[in-house]
Amino acid sequence: MEILTNDKVNYETNTMIKAGIIGGTGYTGVELLRLLHNHPETEVVAISSRSLNGKRVDSIFPSLVGQSDLTFTLPSDECLDQCDVVFFATPHGVAMESAGAFIQKGIKVIDLGADFRISDADEWSKWYAMKHTQIKLLSSSVYGLPENNRVAIKDAQLVANPGCYPTAIQLALKPLLENQLIDLSNIVADCKSGVSGAGRGANQATLLCEVGESFKAYGVGGHRHYPEIKQELESMAGSKVGLTFVPHLVPMIRGIFATIYVDLKDEAVDISPYFEDAYSNEHFVTILGGGNYPETRSVKSSNFCQISWQKIANSKKLVVMSVIDNLVKGASGQAIQNMNIMFGFDEKLGLDQIGLLP
Amino acid sequence: MEILTNDKVNYETNTMIKAGIIGGTGYTGVELLRLLHNHPETEVVAISSRSLNGKRVDSIFPSLVGQSDLTFTLPSDECLDQCDVVFFATPHGVAMESAGAFIQKGIKVIDLGADFRISDADEWSKWYAMKHTQIKLLSSSVYGLPENNRVAIKDAQLVANPGCYPTAIQLALKPLLENQLIDLSNIVADCKSGVSGAGRGANQATLLCEVGESFKAYGVGGHRHYPEIKQELESMAGSKVGLTFVPHLVPMIRGIFATIYVDLKDEAVDISPYFEDAYSNEHFVTILGGGNYPETRSVKSSNFCQISWQKIANSKKLVVMSVIDNLVKGASGQAIQNMNIMFGFDEKLGLDQIGLLP
Amino acid sequence: MEILTNDKVNYETNTMIKAGIIGGTGYTGVELLRLLHNHPETEVVAISSRSLNGKRVDSIFPSLVGQSDLTFTLPSDECLDQCDVVFFATPHGVAMESAGAFIQKGIKVIDLGADFRISDADEWSKWYAMKHTQIKLLSSSVYGLPENNRVAIKDAQLVANPGCYPTAIQLALKPLLENQLIDLSNIVADCKSGVSGAGRGANQATLLCEVGESFKAYGVGGHRHYPEIKQELESMAGSKVGLTFVPHLVPMIRGIFATIYVDLKDEAVDISPYFEDAYSNEHFVTILGGGNYPETRSVKSSNFCQISWQKIANSKKLVVMSVIDNLVKGASGQAIQNMNIMFGFDEKLGLDQIGLLP
Amino acid sequence: MEILTNDKVNYETNTMIKAGIIGGTGYTGVELLRLLHNHPETEVVAISSRSLNGKRVDSIFPSLVGQSDLTFTLPSDECLDQCDVVFFATPHGVAMESAGAFIQKGIKVIDLGADFRISDADEWSKWYAMKHTQIKLLSSSVYGLPENNRVAIKDAQLVANPGCYPTAIQLALKPLLENQLIDLSNIVADCKSGVSGAGRGANQATLLCEVGESFKAYGVGGHRHYPEIKQELESMAGSKVGLTFVPHLVPMIRGIFATIYVDLKDEAVDISPYFEDAYSNEHFVTILGGGNYPETRSVKSSNFCQISWQKIANSKKLVVMSVIDNLVKGASGQAIQNMNIMFGFDEKLGLDQIGLLP
Repeated sequence: MEILTNDKVNYETNTMIKAGIIGGTGYTGVELLRLLHNHPETEVVAISSRSLNGKRVDSIFPSLVGQSDLTFTLPSDECLDQCDVVFFATPHGVAMESAGAFIQKGIKVIDLGADFRISDADEWSKWYAMKHTQIKLLSSSVYGLPENNRVAIKDAQLVANPGCYPTAIQLALKPLLENQLIDLSNIVADCKSGVSGAGRGANQATLLCEVGESFKAYGVGGHRHYPEIKQELESMAGSKVGLTFVPHLVPMIRGIFATIYVDLKDEAVDISPYFEDAYSNEHFVTILGGGNYPETRSVKSSNFCQISWQKIANSKKLVVMSVIDNLVKGASGQAIQNMNIMFGFDEKLGLDQIGLLP
Repeated sequence: MEILTNDKVNYETNTMIKAGIIGGTGYTGVELLRLLHNHPETEVVAISSRSLNGKRVDSIFPSLVGQSDLTFTLPSDECLDQCDVVFFATPHGVAMESAGAFIQKGIKVIDLGADFRISDADEWSKWYAMKHTQIKLLSSSVYGLPENNRVAIKDAQLVANPGCYPTAIQLALKPLLENQLIDLSNIVADCKSGVSGAGRGANQATLLCEVGESFKAYGVGGHRHYPEIKQELESMAGSKVGLTFVPHLVPMIRGIFATIYVDLKDEAVDISPYFEDAYSNEHFVTILGGGNYPETRSVKSSNFCQISWQKIANSKKLVVMSVIDNLVKGASGQAIQNMNIMFGFDEKLGLDQIGLLP
Repeated sequence: MEILTNDKVNYETNTMIKAGIIGGTGYTGVELLRLLHNHPETEVVAISSRSLNGKRVDSIFPSLVGQSDLTFTLPSDECLDQCDVVFFATPHGVAMESAGAFIQKGIKVIDLGADFRISDADEWSKWYAMKHTQIKLLSSSVYGLPENNRVAIKDAQLVANPGCYPTAIQLALKPLLENQLIDLSNIVADCKSGVSGAGRGANQATLLCEVGESFKAYGVGGHRHYPEIKQELESMAGSKVGLTFVPHLVPMIRGIFATIYVDLKDEAVDISPYFEDAYSNEHFVTILGGGNYPETRSVKSSNFCQISWQKIANSKKLVVMSVIDNLVKGASGQAIQNMNIMFGFDEKLGLDQIGLLP
Repeated sequence: MEILTNDKVNYETNTMIKAGIIGGTGYTGVELLRLLHNHPETEVVAISSRSLNGKRVDSIFPSLVGQSDLTFTLPSDECLDQCDVVFFATPHGVAMESAGAFIQKGIKVIDLGADFRISDADEWSKWYAMKHTQIKLLSSSVYGLPENNRVAIKDAQLVANPGCYPTAIQLALKPLLENQLIDLSNIVADCKSGVSGAGRGANQATLLCEVGESFKAYGVGGHRHYPEIKQELESMAGSKVGLTFVPHLVPMIRGIFATIYVDLKDEAVDISPYFEDAYSNEHFVTILGGGNYPETRSVKSSNFCQISWQKIANSKKLVVMSVIDNLVKGASGQAIQNMNIMFGFDEKLGLDQIGLLP
């Protein structure tokens, strides 16, 4: 595709779908632009930013110089009303207030933020310190993990794109939970993320000199992805789960590594067939065999999730490991995968790239 | 495209061109695989490695798991004879000995190594400490910098793909040299490279703990890219040049930054039109305006070169800066750009991706 | 102190203790030199390396240029016999064969390698794929974790310096184990290390381009530190423990972060007093209060271990986190701490430095 | 030394000098604390920060937990009046207004900022966009590069601590300039700095995700260190110099690398004796021989400057390279070196540490 200028699109003859991005100044915004540039059936016709209204997008993202003539508009700009799909790449609270208007106009909405991920509005309000004002919209939204929810996504008007940690953890545990293979009371998810997960805002805590050459835990006492992970794991298991979730920050830009410790009900079970059943037809989930463990670099810039596991000898303990690129399968790539499903495209469209190595 | 298995290609009905890679165990090899995966008119049918013969490619490059069923063959394997084009991603000396046999069979050859870059065989022998044995082949080869040499590349059977530093420096200086704007006796190229330029071999000097969190110069007394740079600058200038070239190693994986200091003949000249003339029709060369300076991240994973410059006040000194990704425009991407030209494809085919940011 | 030349030491009048280093070409070797340079009562009089015999130490470690005139000797060089203490910074198997001769001459030995860490020789042989030939020496050796074993270290002739992971894990769990506060059957230690832990040998797997900008697990099925950790935790607990230990590699040079998941016997217990009791008099162990979690950068270049913990709400799960610099408290610093104890010096001598931040 | 608490110092019996730090919340502030911790004759008795007044210093710098009980005071706090020396680690403009009051009380002042580095107040005002209000103080101040100015520093009440780039460049060129060996009209200083030089403020431009894995130039059109470098080089040369200075940002925390291109007057001159003459008695300047080039890691955390050079064959061009740690010899270490001179201590006191490698 070509990323066209705001005003030059010939809407009459153009048969590609038109996409808009609300709040495109962060890393998920520029990642949507990068990935949609490769999408043969979609063109980005508008991208909004209150603070950068009127500025050229390539003045903020130098990778786009010569590749995009887009300028930032206000989120109220009517060019967004001509879209077929709108992506919200905004902090929580924004999509909650604005998604409804688009949906009423028949525009599909994919929220990369957190506003529609937690089905219990009170629970959401507790974690996000803000009242959820759109209960009806919330109940109509669909949680957008394609590998778990493809049919519902297909007909959705509003998709809640999963968080990055929740994506890595759910894909790692789905075969175990759905087949009742593990003790639900003791799931430990020790997760590690690159710094891009913390966003692009000016913040002393994510300066290179503060997080470079260091490793730390954060949010140990409570991270906003916790209720989302718990909700979805319980949905897979059909029962309550006891979850311990500790996120850590890795001195690198992209990538999530989840190391998950579970107790097998039957120490002797062979779990391979369950993973194969679950993912043999899933293009974006790769099971590593042969004693290989995943590395985040293997999926850098790609929409793949790689998974492997290790049974601990003389023990019921199983360690499952999964990796994703937090900005792709953990955000913008998964959003496009959802878009492909919603519009009846091949799910791989625009996403069939190999990871950048090294 | 699909990267097909060695033996499943249906050569009768398949109209894509068939590519082979000799020596595909390094970073330029896997980068060719990544980029050709996106090429709609090419399929990689063979990749060789003496040391890894018989091993699956994805066992060496985990980014390819699930995306490639290729296995390494011997360089003598006959499957390479069915190729339309062969890329040499080998240390110097290998292509020199083997390229001729492919060319005799009508197979086009693109050498990512150094064997055919220096037109003076004695000069080559001096720098590479090895006798050049293929004078005839050397004289028939074409230096593959498309922005300078497109017509000759189109008809070439053997293309010498430029080195990474030479690419960054030549693109930065071409408009100045061809228009006789600078003093040729005093060109200083202070260049900085990511560590992937040093290759994938086990080497204490490029361990993360040796080069991480550090910056150093190397090859100050003489680097093998020096004669290549000098030869091509002199060709552009039509005259001898006095060149000082100092490469440095940056603690990052990809990217080259060239800071080039030249003396303008006429301190008052406006050089912008010369750069615009040179590059306005070049898709992969981007001139930054508005006081912007390039950053290597802007072109990471892409085939673009970004250039800008700064005139030093009250002085004839001009600083020209250029950036490329050493593995793309500095190696594998440029090789595919050359292939596109040689086969009459759109030059952008398989290469029209935006850089990975962040 | 001054690091003196091999031959200029005036042994008659010099009252400092004389130290030798066997196998000083790796990161623990140069770290011993750096730290002993600050030690007012010790001078390094000899450092050996078979491969670098005769070469100046500062030609290998450029941080020492102008600061050391030492040259590498053979390990058999008699200058080592004049030492008061010898540090083995060698791969496993070396100290096992050579330590005895030094001890017979009345020279104290501190082995930074693994040869004397596992008291069960058969268990050692199983993990290190080599027969343990020095059962008697092994039984006379003392495990050198000062915070747990100070009295025995004081009188030891042969100290087995702990591994880096074992140090971080033991210090984090000691108060919990000794006070019987946790369920011993389910201890999960998810550990992360900087790359210097993998040593200085030429190795493709630890090139900057292989481990930079990536995160991975390794040794999941079995790591050589596992039996050491298990042995010492069981010693602290006075009973068998069920341990799951997964090490990971972080794209940074120095630092270990241990995230340890345990189940409290009594969900309501306040563990603070137990940690305070254990460490209030330990100079090198710092308990973080106030909801702070450790970061590896806080102890970079220093001999400190920082510890904190988080009780998981509505659960018996406790997460204990500890950080050390793997080359200091995890290796060379702890070795000097042991030396100080063995020679009756103040335990902080030469080690009382604040971590390098940023 | 011990870093004592604000109120526990026994001023009567204590014979150590008392140091205060104004504006201690940045990287030079914590580096002063780290280095002075090792200084046997100095104790830090006060550290100020308007924004953090009342907070514990170790709550901001976790490397200090357990090692310092200091709390931040207001800069007006009278505890600062009891100091023997005050370090300003403040943005430009602060020391200009406040240094005079300390000097009047007989307290020596070392300004790590820029306020007293440029002797021409109008020139200063031009570059710092602020009127210089303290002409008299300015004229009494001494530029604190010990290797060039030791005698004047000894008697100074107010020392202007040099900038980081200026330190690296001056030490590299001093022997060449003072001995009239080079053409003064064409000096090119291509410099590279770690990110800590940009400070600790929340700033999008220095986030790990913005500067990690990238290399860029900045300030090409004019950097505030330019007039300082030019002034001092001209002072050394006794004549005007034509200087081109381009700083770059390296994706690492600490270190400055200066690559300086000059033209020898006499191509055949041997410059070694001139460097040896200049630095054979300078503890903190190390000349690398044997074809070695400096690396920033060699001086990480230390006060050393390492220098080497390469004559370009068949040319009058000489490349001089120097490295320092920007936070030590380029800031806080040099400040302490100046303090040692001002108080008659051994110049190495508190600074005699070997660089951290790896």
